[in-house]
Amino acid sequence: MKKLKMGMIGGGGGSFIGAIHRNAALLDNCIELVCGSFSSDFQNSIETGKKLYLNEERIYKSYDEMISVESKLDLNERMNIVSIVTPNHLHFDPAVKALDNGFPVIIDKPLSFDSDQAKKLVEKVNETNLPFAVTHTYTGYPMVKEAKSLIENGKIGKIRKVAVEYPQGWLTTNLENTDNKQASWRTDPKKSGKAGSMGDIGTHAANMVEYVTGKKIISLFSKLNTVVKGRLLEDDGNVLISMEDGIEGNLMTSQIATGEENDLKIRVWGEEGGIEWKHSTPNTLLLKLNGNPNQILRAGVDNSYLSDFALSHCRTPSGHPEGFIEAFANIYRNFSYAVNNHLNSKDNDEIYDFPTVEEGYRGMKFIDAVIESSIHSKWINI
Amino acid sequence: MKKLKMGMIGGGGGSFIGAIHRNAALLDNCIELVCGSFSSDFQNSIETGKKLYLNEERIYKSYDEMISVESKLDLNERMNIVSIVTPNHLHFDPAVKALDNGFPVIIDKPLSFDSDQAKKLVEKVNETNLPFAVTHTYTGYPMVKEAKSLIENGKIGKIRKVAVEYPQGWLTTNLENTDNKQASWRTDPKKSGKAGSMGDIGTHAANMVEYVTGKKIISLFSKLNTVVKGRLLEDDGNVLISMEDGIEGNLMTSQIATGEENDLKIRVWGEEGGIEWKHSTPNTLLLKLNGNPNQILRAGVDNSYLSDFALSHCRTPSGHPEGFIEAFANIYRNFSYAVNNHLNSKDNDEIYDFPTVEEGYRGMKFIDAVIESSIHSKWINI
Amino acid sequence: MKKLKMGMIGGGGGSFIGAIHRNAALLDNCIELVCGSFSSDFQNSIETGKKLYLNEERIYKSYDEMISVESKLDLNERMNIVSIVTPNHLHFDPAVKALDNGFPVIIDKPLSFDSDQAKKLVEKVNETNLPFAVTHTYTGYPMVKEAKSLIENGKIGKIRKVAVEYPQGWLTTNLENTDNKQASWRTDPKKSGKAGSMGDIGTHAANMVEYVTGKKIISLFSKLNTVVKGRLLEDDGNVLISMEDGIEGNLMTSQIATGEENDLKIRVWGEEGGIEWKHSTPNTLLLKLNGNPNQILRAGVDNSYLSDFALSHCRTPSGHPEGFIEAFANIYRNFSYAVNNHLNSKDNDEIYDFPTVEEGYRGMKFIDAVIESSIHSKWINI
Amino acid sequence: MKKLKMGMIGGGGGSFIGAIHRNAALLDNCIELVCGSFSSDFQNSIETGKKLYLNEERIYKSYDEMISVESKLDLNERMNIVSIVTPNHLHFDPAVKALDNGFPVIIDKPLSFDSDQAKKLVEKVNETNLPFAVTHTYTGYPMVKEAKSLIENGKIGKIRKVAVEYPQGWLTTNLENTDNKQASWRTDPKKSGKAGSMGDIGTHAANMVEYVTGKKIISLFSKLNTVVKGRLLEDDGNVLISMEDGIEGNLMTSQIATGEENDLKIRVWGEEGGIEWKHSTPNTLLLKLNGNPNQILRAGVDNSYLSDFALSHCRTPSGHPEGFIEAFANIYRNFSYAVNNHLNSKDNDEIYDFPTVEEGYRGMKFIDAVIESSIHSKWINI
Repeated sequence: MKKLKMGMIGGGGGSFIGAIHRNAALLDNCIELVCGSFSSDFQNSIETGKKLYLNEERIYKSYDEMISVESKLDLNERMNIVSIVTPNHLHFDPAVKALDNGFPVIIDKPLSFDSDQAKKLVEKVNETNLPFAVTHTYTGYPMVKEAKSLIENGKIGKIRKVAVEYPQGWLTTNLENTDNKQASWRTDPKKSGKAGSMGDIGTHAANMVEYVTGKKIISLFSKLNTVVKGRLLEDDGNVLISMEDGIEGNLMTSQIATGEENDLKIRVWGEEGGIEWKHSTPNTLLLKLNGNPNQILRAGVDNSYLSDFALSHCRTPSGHPEGFIEAFANIYRNFSYAVNNHLNSKDNDEIYDFPTVEEGYRGMKFIDAVIESSIHSKWINI
Repeated sequence: MKKLKMGMIGGGGGSFIGAIHRNAALLDNCIELVCGSFSSDFQNSIETGKKLYLNEERIYKSYDEMISVESKLDLNERMNIVSIVTPNHLHFDPAVKALDNGFPVIIDKPLSFDSDQAKKLVEKVNETNLPFAVTHTYTGYPMVKEAKSLIENGKIGKIRKVAVEYPQGWLTTNLENTDNKQASWRTDPKKSGKAGSMGDIGTHAANMVEYVTGKKIISLFSKLNTVVKGRLLEDDGNVLISMEDGIEGNLMTSQIATGEENDLKIRVWGEEGGIEWKHSTPNTLLLKLNGNPNQILRAGVDNSYLSDFALSHCRTPSGHPEGFIEAFANIYRNFSYAVNNHLNSKDNDEIYDFPTVEEGYRGMKFIDAVIESSIHSKWINI
Repeated sequence: MKKLKMGMIGGGGGSFIGAIHRNAALLDNCIELVCGSFSSDFQNSIETGKKLYLNEERIYKSYDEMISVESKLDLNERMNIVSIVTPNHLHFDPAVKALDNGFPVIIDKPLSFDSDQAKKLVEKVNETNLPFAVTHTYTGYPMVKEAKSLIENGKIGKIRKVAVEYPQGWLTTNLENTDNKQASWRTDPKKSGKAGSMGDIGTHAANMVEYVTGKKIISLFSKLNTVVKGRLLEDDGNVLISMEDGIEGNLMTSQIATGEENDLKIRVWGEEGGIEWKHSTPNTLLLKLNGNPNQILRAGVDNSYLSDFALSHCRTPSGHPEGFIEAFANIYRNFSYAVNNHLNSKDNDEIYDFPTVEEGYRGMKFIDAVIESSIHSKWINI
Repeated sequence: MKKLKMGMIGGGGGSFIGAIHRNAALLDNCIELVCGSFSSDFQNSIETGKKLYLNEERIYKSYDEMISVESKLDLNERMNIVSIVTPNHLHFDPAVKALDNGFPVIIDKPLSFDSDQAKKLVEKVNETNLPFAVTHTYTGYPMVKEAKSLIENGKIGKIRKVAVEYPQGWLTTNLENTDNKQASWRTDPKKSGKAGSMGDIGTHAANMVEYVTGKKIISLFSKLNTVVKGRLLEDDGNVLISMEDGIEGNLMTSQIATGEENDLKIRVWGEEGGIEWKHSTPNTLLLKLNGNPNQILRAGVDNSYLSDFALSHCRTPSGHPEGFIEAFANIYRNFSYAVNNHLNSKDNDEIYDFPTVEEGYRGMKFIDAVIESSIHSKWINI
């Protein structure tokens, strides 16, 4: 294992998610930031890079330049990972170029601007056989791992029903008409793609329910709403979903649920019991076994009742809360294992648990389906 | 005001809801139980009546006999209210007979076996002009009254979105194949009507969302599921709803949500804020005003920030929990005001807040729509 | 078993606790109110009695008159229970007179004005051998019964530590200088006795910790505070307690904990686990077994994992909240069993679980000790 | 501002807190780890250092060696901060040597083995005028900052009462007799000092209550208990505290509260309101203003109702939980500002908010007082 060198595309001044990616990458001391092209505005990029104590030579004018120059550096010096944290419409091109030049990629969600790009990215990853991760952060939490593990091991029996929701209130007003960059690009179909809330957070919800249950959404029926006047993309939606093995459920997202923060919540019910996890109390997992008191499972390296899978994603003893950055860091750390393995040309069966390009592609197909269903008012297969 | 005399139809040994109705009726000392026909099994009826310290002469063989005999008693002695707590298929006939003989009726939900009966009951109530209440208990809670009041007064602005759910787990197994009477009739289409979970608890959810918002459900799209093998009625369902004034939302019910108790939950989001109430913490109402900390409104006669509407439905100071029986008692108490008014031939404008026969009828139309939508897989108007 | 007739002393207009006693007595249909002397102001008493639909002949000028007249009525007609809900200084005399005339007594806490009176009451009860209950309401909750049962059965092992607290904020200001009757007598040493918060709520806390653990407080060290200027009795206190079997702990009460409602909370820790119950969520009991996930035990007639002791104090299925009035009603109902037994001259071993005169006496000794300790700043034995 | 270079003393294999210090130091990209003496066992130290990707030359045999060698390195290369994460008995000597050689120090709590050492450290820091921080982590949370800010600004009025508690259950059994290093040194008076729970967590509780209120504990009365047989230091304690300005309260710690995790909790009540914060939900602060609904204040860079003081300690938007490592990182980041300022010889008035050597010294005096009080059973001044 070596400490990996990372270059970042996007994440300049004003970006929220770029800073989080950096916190997460650094936290476990397995990755260091060595270069970046943080903004199409080179001045912004330089300022950002300097604040991050980068060598000025490795603050690049463009990602093209970064990929080109870095790929010519000595193997021990050049970046080992490209982290892409730009808005959706700027995912595809740098990802392809990075892969074409032999760089493993970790990229924010949704995977791409549209599903055509996503499909091509799957092909490119398969062709290059390079490590590739999509940061569906929420599945990085230890207690989400525990939920998946319990279900896999049959603890709640055959699954019957799911409910997943992701309500936010931050776009209750026309925030895109202020100078809020986050709001602007997320509500602009030229940057965000054809979906608003369904792309930004609906893909998280869909990924979560497939990850935890281990089952895929087969078809869905949706009603999407553009609630705030003048907005160009839907900001709210209610969806019925049918999953493999006869599982039925619903999925709800909103960016206009006034007063809500960011409380992704999943419930799964099986023949023997149910589980419940929500982002507002991420270190807790409720386990509800039929006929028994509900149990409060808690993250913590000392909670020996947890699965090894969950334990390997905890850093602190129980009662020392881990949060969003740590969940993010779990993806970076697991990805760093895969990259180290790749660099050492190992070809073993070890499983590195992080969201893959295929999961990213499913997210794009989810977007297609949820929009088509709402337009035509009929059930659509994914 | 006089203390009212009540006769009960149904509620014999083994009944859950009959005992609750009696607790609720007695709690506030405005009603006393004087007679009953508690079961089609006269022996059961006699035993029940004796345990309730009734005069044996007023334990009747049938509701026909009860209505007939009581209607001939002296005005000061005979019952003033008929409480009907039988399974659904035994609602219509005694209700009509009671009304035809001049007795105000309070009846459990859903209103009737089918919507035809419901329509006739509406006509009968209009014709007789007698007080008539349907026990949609949950709207009896003080903090539900507060939610309605806040919304009416524009506190959260124009409503945009709702989410209402009522998950239970008690029918996770084939409980109807044991000697559980509650499960048996509720899963029997001859007694329960054409709906299972949607009739038993879905009507509560639909009533709640219409009561709190003051808006009606216009159309819906549903997917109903019969999950437990061998069951004859649906035991789970997910529904998209469209309400007046462009409000969109979802409604979920389940009787197979293993590990869940009885946690009816409603959330409403408007332009300025949101509210959240759930049955597991009934004395709390969350108020979420945009840009401000969420507020925890609490029931209590001493909480002067509450509306008069809510305060008039509290009995205890804040921090002394009121529960299900008290919510039920609020319906009985309000109904007793209406009956007293009726007995005194008053004809004033006073509003008595309890669920009416029209609300009961809407519940039956909700059942029709939700079943039709699921069968035909299309949006159905109510 | 017969339906018992109750007379009430105190509880006139403006009383909070009188109405609660009546709700609780009536709820289960085992007691009816037949007479009362609700106030030293006869007009208030008449108005109160009329609102309660009493026969005007049985609304009495004084408790002396009530006890005297009722004791001469026919056995089938006269009251069977005297409920005393007056301020503390008016507990002793009517209780003694009721007992002397053969009437079982149920009385609000604290038992009496001072411990001398309490001692005499114990002697009087022993002498008359009449049923006598003190309404330490909180031990009437089903999940407090469950806590006691779990501990008795060794579920959490030998007890080591307790923490009990009862914070309120309602006396944060000089409420006694307004027309608030509740505040006035509770802060008046001539009516309340020598303790303020420690008498009104500290006795509940002390009773709770002794009831749940089955162990007695042996000694204590306290610091009492009179926080609000001009107040005549302490309104806040912190206490260290030592209990039988080497259990150590703390007990806190306050009436000036601004913003708090009425959240009596008890935690007990043993060698194998801990329990936690709090009044704000009374239908929940946390069970914390060492090395295992915490469990959420819930009240409900259908929760078969509960002890028979707890189940016999539930009325509703799980998820249908029971509250303060129901806990109160459990005391009344259990007391009614004892009175029925007394009337039938049974002399069996059946245990009726309600707070006794001895528990009331211990409360008065707790008050003595807690005040003496604070004055002399030393550990005091109870 | 420059990126600071850190050397670590302690934190070798098996250490919990060493890894947390490193996560915290690295998270914000303002500090990098360049050298260490992680264990008295050099082999352990080498292995630890290699895993951390250190240059082997800078993994030292002893802290003496590290301080000596590093102090001779070029200014641009040598460490700028010494982080001391050893058990208590190994705090004083390396801290003094680091300071004597001009290195700013950040050190775990409690400050030292005894209060004599603490006093000397205060003198040494004053003499050298070097930045010095003690990691009382919990005051690093944004919502603790908000609590302090609200109180400072008079939001809850003059403070009257406090309650602080820190219950843990991890030492319920004789864990020190297993191979658990954490338990071994913490229960060994030769390494931990004269206090067990009061040193390890009681000092956190005392620091928290003084930090949030801005008032000092003047005197206290305690009862300490050694509950687990064979243990050499107290593992449980209950304390009454009197603070400046007439504030009274209690402080409780335990390591034998079976089933508890790490839930430090503080409540403060003033004339106008109260606040409540607990570690299990660290991003929430309850604000209880008299006569108003309680408010749920939440961490988040976008919650504009928060004070600048709190906002400057948030990294994520509301609803993205920050945890223990982030609170720790706030101390490291603030300390890095002070060190940067020191390196640039600035001498301005800027306040860097982190726990100082004086706060560490107060913790040691708290330990002295709490032990003396328990032994002599009397109130002791700090």
